[in-house]
Amino acid sequence: MTTVRTRVAIIGAGPAGLLLAHLLDAAGIESIVVDARSREQIETTIRAGILEQGTVETLAETGASARVLAEGHRHDGIELRFDGAGYRIDFAGLVGRAVWLYPQHEVLRDLIAARLAAGQDLRFGVRAERVEDASGARPRVILTDADGQPLTIEADFVVGADGSRSVVREAVTGSSTGGYFREYPFAWFGILCEAPPSAPELIYSNSPDGFALISQRSESVQRMYFQCDPEVDAASFSEAELWDALQRRVPGTTLREGPIFQRDVLRFRSFVAHELRRGRAALVGDAAHTVPPTGAKGMNLAVADVRLLAPALQALLLEGDERLIDAFAETALERIWKAQHFSWWMTSLLHVAPGASEFDRRRQLGELRSVVGSAHGAAYLAEAYTGWPLAR
Amino acid sequence: MTTVRTRVAIIGAGPAGLLLAHLLDAAGIESIVVDARSREQIETTIRAGILEQGTVETLAETGASARVLAEGHRHDGIELRFDGAGYRIDFAGLVGRAVWLYPQHEVLRDLIAARLAAGQDLRFGVRAERVEDASGARPRVILTDADGQPLTIEADFVVGADGSRSVVREAVTGSSTGGYFREYPFAWFGILCEAPPSAPELIYSNSPDGFALISQRSESVQRMYFQCDPEVDAASFSEAELWDALQRRVPGTTLREGPIFQRDVLRFRSFVAHELRRGRAALVGDAAHTVPPTGAKGMNLAVADVRLLAPALQALLLEGDERLIDAFAETALERIWKAQHFSWWMTSLLHVAPGASEFDRRRQLGELRSVVGSAHGAAYLAEAYTGWPLAR
Ligand SMILES: Cc1cc2nc3c(=O)[nH]c(=O)nc-3n(C[C@H](O)[C@H](O)[C@H](O)COP(=O)(O)OP(=O)(O)OC[C@H]3O[C@@H](n4cnc5c(N)ncnc54)[C@H](O)[C@@H]3O)c2cc1C
Ligand SMILES: Cc1cc2nc3c(=O)[nH]c(=O)nc-3n(C[C@H](O)[C@H](O)[C@H](O)COP(=O)(O)OP(=O)(O)OC[C@H]3O[C@@H](n4cnc5c(N)ncnc54)[C@H](O)[C@@H]3O)c2cc1C
Repeated sequence: MTTVRTRVAIIGAGPAGLLLAHLLDAAGIESIVVDARSREQIETTIRAGILEQGTVETLAETGASARVLAEGHRHDGIELRFDGAGYRIDFAGLVGRAVWLYPQHEVLRDLIAARLAAGQDLRFGVRAERVEDASGARPRVILTDADGQPLTIEADFVVGADGSRSVVREAVTGSSTGGYFREYPFAWFGILCEAPPSAPELIYSNSPDGFALISQRSESVQRMYFQCDPEVDAASFSEAELWDALQRRVPGTTLREGPIFQRDVLRFRSFVAHELRRGRAALVGDAAHTVPPTGAKGMNLAVADVRLLAPALQALLLEGDERLIDAFAETALERIWKAQHFSWWMTSLLHVAPGASEFDRRRQLGELRSVVGSAHGAAYLAEAYTGWPLAR
Repeated sequence: MTTVRTRVAIIGAGPAGLLLAHLLDAAGIESIVVDARSREQIETTIRAGILEQGTVETLAETGASARVLAEGHRHDGIELRFDGAGYRIDFAGLVGRAVWLYPQHEVLRDLIAARLAAGQDLRFGVRAERVEDASGARPRVILTDADGQPLTIEADFVVGADGSRSVVREAVTGSSTGGYFREYPFAWFGILCEAPPSAPELIYSNSPDGFALISQRSESVQRMYFQCDPEVDAASFSEAELWDALQRRVPGTTLREGPIFQRDVLRFRSFVAHELRRGRAALVGDAAHTVPPTGAKGMNLAVADVRLLAPALQALLLEGDERLIDAFAETALERIWKAQHFSWWMTSLLHVAPGASEFDRRRQLGELRSVVGSAHGAAYLAEAYTGWPLAR
């Protein structure tokens, strides 16, 4: 059985794990990052695409991604559409901030390339099985390496950046599922298609048939979603049926159609782990929490967690100062619950809940009208969507 | 059978009916106001107490109440209390507006005194039974007068200002219950007590035990509420139990106790009639809609309705111009649904719903933190609470 030693063992090479390794490296703290998946899988999986301004600034200023500003698309607003009309939420005018469209897997490519170029330890196809002795001074991660051989990493600190099915979670919370939880009675049907953009900015549409989101990827590839039953079989729709479902939900815009080359169903779950840290182990990103995608907070929240954890580990491991790590969970949870609320709010504002009464429906339209009809309401939404300030 | 003729028959001498009669009179339009209750009952029933700035301006500027500015108490903010701390929503600083505490029955006293002093027709103890021929040019109200004798009022227009159990509603909507409807799994236990104020401004408290509202009436009388089961028997609580229930819900403030001389249980219902106008009949105030009390919108919405209906009747009856009356329902409904949303929002923000999960509870605290932590969020709430602009 091979045992390797490092300062910080990071499980998961998603945005949370890779960015943390990058920030630790800049502070002179050595780490090992492992991921159960292959590099190719990680670099081609389509997931989040909307980056808060603070996320972009973090990636650009720390050198994590040189491309985000050059190749990402800045969006200064979104459109809320309901009851036959569209209303722009003018981020720039309301709060002087913006978001960027830059796909998550492009962020990951940038981070992976930088780490490998610098000769730092990043292992693909290596699966963590469990964490031992998280409360002690030298916690251990038990893994299976790419050849199916057992591997142990002994570290000063273990970070679970291993996504929503985290195996590190059990060492932190005492149970693999231990958390606050909410499920929703709908999901998103997402497609990628080869077509020009149908609109210059994202359209969040609340229609009588349900929610749709028209978003963009590039001049020739678009990402769109519509509200669907969580049990739907993604393969059961013809392309014509998908375009019809989308088009019906954005009256007023003629969608520009093209071949649909990917389709997926995103389940809606809200989750926050009961604990984010125990002794020498902590959770960040989806391992710590998941949000429904409506608020576009998933990846951004992972970045915000890491922005808190990196300086806390720096103080702990370089100076023996435990104050920041002791405050980590409480500080992180403040933003996490605000983001959970925002994600729930955007979801409940825009979706048609199965079984909603006519009263609920009209109240929802009254809420949409209140938000777009008030500079304060629109700014409250814009401020959350573009992202609250990050820890400095 | 006695038949009397008038231009506008107004059923109900609550805030809606009496203010409408006042505004019509100022425009030179004669009306008859009837109410099933006695003057004394009307003038002593404790109900709403928070007036939006626009309501106060309406009452003061039209001469409806000379006392509101002199005897009402201006409040420039409220406190939201949760998780052990209080946060002031600074109306004056955020939106430059205020609310006034001036009890509804004082408004009614002012309006009744003015109407009787001017020798205008106002009849107590007269019950409307139904409206006939609402769609024709001369609708009729069939009533029972104070002596139990039948009475008919023939009018150019009939207004249902007869509260939540409106009998005029059937003539307008085709059914006595026809409307959009929502019930809540809790109610408010309200008390009036002889005690000095416990706080200078209203405290809206979200505590683990449920909601409480500490409000004021005068230097020596206070009004307080706490969330309770809708089926509770108001008589079953001792005074000590009531103080205990209230005190537990506002940790951080020591309530100043005194004899409790009135207690009532307020049911929470949201309702909007399917239609607000048919032909020569219209609904205003609680006859058209009811809101849960959390947003303090009930009486204010009645005033807003009347501010729209009065000029519409003036145009119709003095100039034969139907445009405003044809637009009445749609214009009124825009504010009504915003107010329904606001009332629902304040309710869901502050109450503990029976069966709420730990997730829901923490999301709610995340929402409260989002609102008080954001100048935009706080202003959005302040703008709605102090009241959107009224029709001019
Ligand atoms: C299908 C999908 C679509 C999404 N779309 C959007 C969107 O449109 N907008 C949005 O805002 N958010 C979206 N999200 C959410 C967003 O992508 C996540 O919030 C974000 O990826 C979280 O980053 P992370 O680093 O915490 O976790 P992840 O990105 O999930 O990374 C975790 C990594 O850990 C690895 N791992 C897991 N277990 C182990 C183990 N035992 N050993 C070793 N490695 C392990 C995984 O292979 C993975 O690479 C989506 C999520 C999914 C699943
Ligand atoms: C117990 C209670 C407490 C409340 N507390 C608050 C509060 O704290 N804050 C708040 O914002 N709102 C409160 N409200 C709501 C607020 O008081 C109402 O929204 C407001 O009174 C509506 O005014 P209105 O003129 O439309 O109806 P009402 O004030 O109900 O007046 C209707 C009148 O019509 C009369 N009437 C009814 N049927 C007939 C008939 N067939 N013939 C003749 N007359 C008839 C009634 O006797 C009554 O006087 C409360 C309501 C209730 C019931």
